[in-house]
Amino acid sequence: MTTTMRAVVAEGSGGPDVLRVVERPRPEPGPGQILVRVHAAGVNRPDVMQRQGNYPPPPGASEIFGLELAGQVEAVGSGDTGFAEGDRVMALVHSGAYAEWAVVDAPTAIRVPEGLEMVAAGAVPETFFTVWSNVFERAALKEGETLLVHGGTSGIGTTALLLAKARGSRVIVTAGSDAKCAAARDLGADHAVNYREADFVAEVQALTDGAGPDVILDMVGGPYVQRNLDLIATDGRIAQIAFLQGSRADLDLQPLLMKRVTLTGSTLRARPVAMKAKLARALEDQVVPLLAEGRVLPPIDSVFPLEEVARAHARMDSSEHVGKIVLDMQPQE
Amino acid sequence: MTTTMRAVVAEGSGGPDVLRVVERPRPEPGPGQILVRVHAAGVNRPDVMQRQGNYPPPPGASEIFGLELAGQVEAVGSGDTGFAEGDRVMALVHSGAYAEWAVVDAPTAIRVPEGLEMVAAGAVPETFFTVWSNVFERAALKEGETLLVHGGTSGIGTTALLLAKARGSRVIVTAGSDAKCAAARDLGADHAVNYREADFVAEVQALTDGAGPDVILDMVGGPYVQRNLDLIATDGRIAQIAFLQGSRADLDLQPLLMKRVTLTGSTLRARPVAMKAKLARALEDQVVPLLAEGRVLPPIDSVFPLEEVARAHARMDSSEHVGKIVLDMQPQE
Repeated sequence: MTTTMRAVVAEGSGGPDVLRVVERPRPEPGPGQILVRVHAAGVNRPDVMQRQGNYPPPPGASEIFGLELAGQVEAVGSGDTGFAEGDRVMALVHSGAYAEWAVVDAPTAIRVPEGLEMVAAGAVPETFFTVWSNVFERAALKEGETLLVHGGTSGIGTTALLLAKARGSRVIVTAGSDAKCAAARDLGADHAVNYREADFVAEVQALTDGAGPDVILDMVGGPYVQRNLDLIATDGRIAQIAFLQGSRADLDLQPLLMKRVTLTGSTLRARPVAMKAKLARALEDQVVPLLAEGRVLPPIDSVFPLEEVARAHARMDSSEHVGKIVLDMQPQE
Repeated sequence: MTTTMRAVVAEGSGGPDVLRVVERPRPEPGPGQILVRVHAAGVNRPDVMQRQGNYPPPPGASEIFGLELAGQVEAVGSGDTGFAEGDRVMALVHSGAYAEWAVVDAPTAIRVPEGLEMVAAGAVPETFFTVWSNVFERAALKEGETLLVHGGTSGIGTTALLLAKARGSRVIVTAGSDAKCAAARDLGADHAVNYREADFVAEVQALTDGAGPDVILDMVGGPYVQRNLDLIATDGRIAQIAFLQGSRADLDLQPLLMKRVTLTGSTLRARPVAMKAKLARALEDQVVPLLAEGRVLPPIDSVFPLEEVARAHARMDSSEHVGKIVLDMQPQE
């Protein structure tokens, strides 16, 4: 058994070319952890921010990139992890998914249902945990309500769109090109607004007969914060999951009171294991059945072998992707 | 039976002297409404804003001032109102409480429990509905959590303080003088910070071992919005019920994500009758028993006869009051 493995770290910070595939010691599972032979790891926006030096791993986390993975359990730590060698799992990790092996806190792992490909499973945790937690728990989107998703063709955006449609909501997305708008409609969006060509506030107001959407999922921030507040429906909820255009905003918060708006936000990474575990159980109940039936699948934009991690990041930097970018550590050829 | 009554309206807008006690037709209850012989009506901050021309009554509402009352049912409209002549009730109204008679949407009325004086009952609805809805429903304050109340000696502030203490929370208040801080401590506040003498952010951080309060109830707005965001605990909730220092703020919203904060707000007046009715039922379940046992009583700052409404408003303008200011339409002498 080798005791080293290939893994991705950054040498300095900057563009995709700072990423290096290096040899690192294979990790060992501690109490309550499982060692996973990684098959696939999703590439996420926070990975890009980490590469740029703007999103350091939490204290104690490895320098190896990667926040989500799917693979096969190869060893279990002490204690009752609930998993056995050979189990197929998908999981969130603090760091370390861009590697051939990774350790996972067992309570945050979810069994991969029969029929879900491992490459697809590796693209599930980050966006599905994020969307479930923010859109369905914190913002409490209900059947029959209208959801507005900014960045509707991103990994998060497509997941939100598919889950919300599968659960009976009306979905409007914004995207930055007509091609992306068409892609979003192909995935089931009721409407897609090209924000470069139209004022999304006016468009979405018209599409909702002036009422506004009940829930907005936003990762843009900056000038979008006020526009979301102005647009949201009475009793609406805004879930903020990133601030790609900055977290500073000069706001008039009057709509908060007059429309009884709830403005909330969260990141996954900072959460304690117990919260992630609770989320994992909710996903097993509410979402895994949809994945197992194929009613919801993460749209895969592109798949790269581990060695081509820089190309994978360049693809995300291009913002031309629709759906998830995935690293495949066990390509067939 | 007279068909007119004394009632308070404003002639223009401005200071307390624009208020006039005039003769107006006695209203008649429509379907689902009750006619109440008003005994007491609370004076509230929105009444002052309305007097200043900044808070017009909603469309269709009477120009007569007053948002809450207690009194005796004198007639019932058609339909099943659930009330009978002679019942003692307290209720929220869109307008019209500063008068000898008022009509009330029956579903929003609450029976006054035995032993609660009518003058006290007239001081209950506005602050108890507001605090229940914002602190306990929207911000979900739980037993054992810490609540920070700005304006801790206002009508809203004292109600929040008393209810939160009665339900097992720790309560810290801010107030603008040492005398008010002492009054808040007399009412049961665990700590009171004089915001004119100390930086409340630093003080409350120290009082919570750096963790911050779980819930903040704020009516100040303006510069307080950022300070609340900086101070609130991880997974904390901020309930905004007014913007006495303005609704504009130049904010850094990063804490929203990093601490998973929920920022929410509401006003009572704009809510449909069905929402107020739901709140009334929650209050009957959760709060009226505390009022009936005397465990929670609205602290009364001062009581004025209807004719002295201008003095009552001047008292609120002074901001020297602690607790509620009440108009008594049936003074004994």
